[in-house]
Amino acid sequence: MERSFVADLLARIPADPRLEVPPGDDAAVLRPPAERRTVVTVDMLMEGTDFVLGAECPPRAVGHKALAVNLSDLAAMAARPEAAVVSVALPRRGGDAIGRGLLDGILPLAAAHGCVLAGGDTNAWDGPLVISITALGSVPPGRAWRRDGARVGDLLVVSGSCGGSLLGRHLAVTPRCREALAIAERFEVHAAIDISDGLSLDLVRMMEASGTAAVIDLAAVPIHPDAVRMAAAAGDGRSPLDHALGDGEDFELLLALPAAEARRLAAEGRALTGTAFSVIGEVVAGHGLAGRAADGTTHPLAPRGYEHAFDG
Amino acid sequence: MERSFVADLLARIPADPRLEVPPGDDAAVLRPPAERRTVVTVDMLMEGTDFVLGAECPPRAVGHKALAVNLSDLAAMAARPEAAVVSVALPRRGGDAIGRGLLDGILPLAAAHGCVLAGGDTNAWDGPLVISITALGSVPPGRAWRRDGARVGDLLVVSGSCGGSLLGRHLAVTPRCREALAIAERFEVHAAIDISDGLSLDLVRMMEASGTAAVIDLAAVPIHPDAVRMAAAAGDGRSPLDHALGDGEDFELLLALPAAEARRLAAEGRALTGTAFSVIGEVVAGHGLAGRAADGTTHPLAPRGYEHAFDG
Repeated sequence: MERSFVADLLARIPADPRLEVPPGDDAAVLRPPAERRTVVTVDMLMEGTDFVLGAECPPRAVGHKALAVNLSDLAAMAARPEAAVVSVALPRRGGDAIGRGLLDGILPLAAAHGCVLAGGDTNAWDGPLVISITALGSVPPGRAWRRDGARVGDLLVVSGSCGGSLLGRHLAVTPRCREALAIAERFEVHAAIDISDGLSLDLVRMMEASGTAAVIDLAAVPIHPDAVRMAAAAGDGRSPLDHALGDGEDFELLLALPAAEARRLAAEGRALTGTAFSVIGEVVAGHGLAGRAADGTTHPLAPRGYEHAFDG
Repeated sequence: MERSFVADLLARIPADPRLEVPPGDDAAVLRPPAERRTVVTVDMLMEGTDFVLGAECPPRAVGHKALAVNLSDLAAMAARPEAAVVSVALPRRGGDAIGRGLLDGILPLAAAHGCVLAGGDTNAWDGPLVISITALGSVPPGRAWRRDGARVGDLLVVSGSCGGSLLGRHLAVTPRCREALAIAERFEVHAAIDISDGLSLDLVRMMEASGTAAVIDLAAVPIHPDAVRMAAAAGDGRSPLDHALGDGEDFELLLALPAAEARRLAAEGRALTGTAFSVIGEVVAGHGLAGRAADGTTHPLAPRGYEHAFDG
């Protein structure tokens, strides 16, 4: 990588009082907030697998998404964003413009969430674009939301609405950081996860981690208008509800709270955060998922979502 | 990625009291050491660019190197390793075995340096292997070694010896973490960098950051036996000294210290750390590098090393 290009990138990173040594040295030095834990998460996106560069998905969108999915993970831990580092493998041809575009997507989102860009590693190769972002957050001791804390009797709450994210929200990801922090201050949350691979699949992960089962009130699942559009366009027999339960990449919060807290969150959440919160079911003893129809009958529900394909 | 594979990987990560929430949730939660700064660095390695998988470079070697180069960056900041996260794009075919091999290289090195593996992101694709590691370290406030602190009159000290790393040391990297911590406790160090791209190139980076120039005593540069072997085998007119000054991937420490401190480090360093330290020159006013021959004459020295190729 030409030093001038990297120097250009470094010059675009705003100064921040949390940086004792800014990017550009062998490593950056951060002043961590006192009396808080450090939350760390990493996500890698690969061209051709996670996105296809083009008019609908320019480098700026890739940069935005790469940071947004990490911020969503921090939100799911009730962590306040603090810092991020970025490593990229840029295609040798055109990589300069791609690198600048990535930063065009990363910097505004980082600034909006108070996340300082603390450095990176910029490489060029003959392969497709790969970007990996590691995000650091902070949370008071013992206050991180875990996915294994759901208890029988808890109600399940989801932020926003789900399904059809492929129509654009899979790129224009809005991480629920502010919502999570506002809720963590005012509500008792037993378990949390962000919906990356599919509402039902991520829910079953929370239930498995917690040693519990869940019953979803199917009529209560908040369905995004994109899920309705996708169901109408596809004509493959999948309903809007199917899309809401299985599409994934919604990056909404899925929470388990004591029943009274859950109802209070559904009542007050929108006024508090600007985002709606819906009670979609309850945590019960057992294993797996069930769907409860409007007539009160329940049926086992197979979790659906994005399982990462792999040949051993 | 199959959950069983990721679960296998997670099961191999040892428990650590620094982990308040272990890997496997949306993010890991770390207890940072009190009253210390957080040092963060990231490096990405790509198959075909940074390594070629094969008998001489199995996945275990790639895993080792990917962590080692990050630990070397922490050493160059006088930071104590604390944690690392790993993201990988594994080739779809054979990726399971590659992923396990990577961890075979990462885990022993992490354990040897007290670095907890705090999570990762495991992906499969049709492209070559890509691995990105972010390492976190800690250092007392204001005590990180920077590259911009060299002062006129300082002497330059290098650990170990340089050149010919391609004969094997570019993979079997020994990060100088323990040496750095021992020196930081006992010596006044003005500036530091690790030699990744070439002794002369990394030195000129330190000088440029510090606003100073350097004179290298050419007879004092510690030449690795591999540099002698490479010079003899290549027959391209490059001397062992040329290799020592320009090959890179030595991952030795290059330090600028007040003259008396530098001489004391050269005298006591090996007994203290098990690694030799050599005074190789001095920091002077001006710009650029010069080499001083045995007869005392000096000549400008063009920095040589690995400049990351890039087409804009």
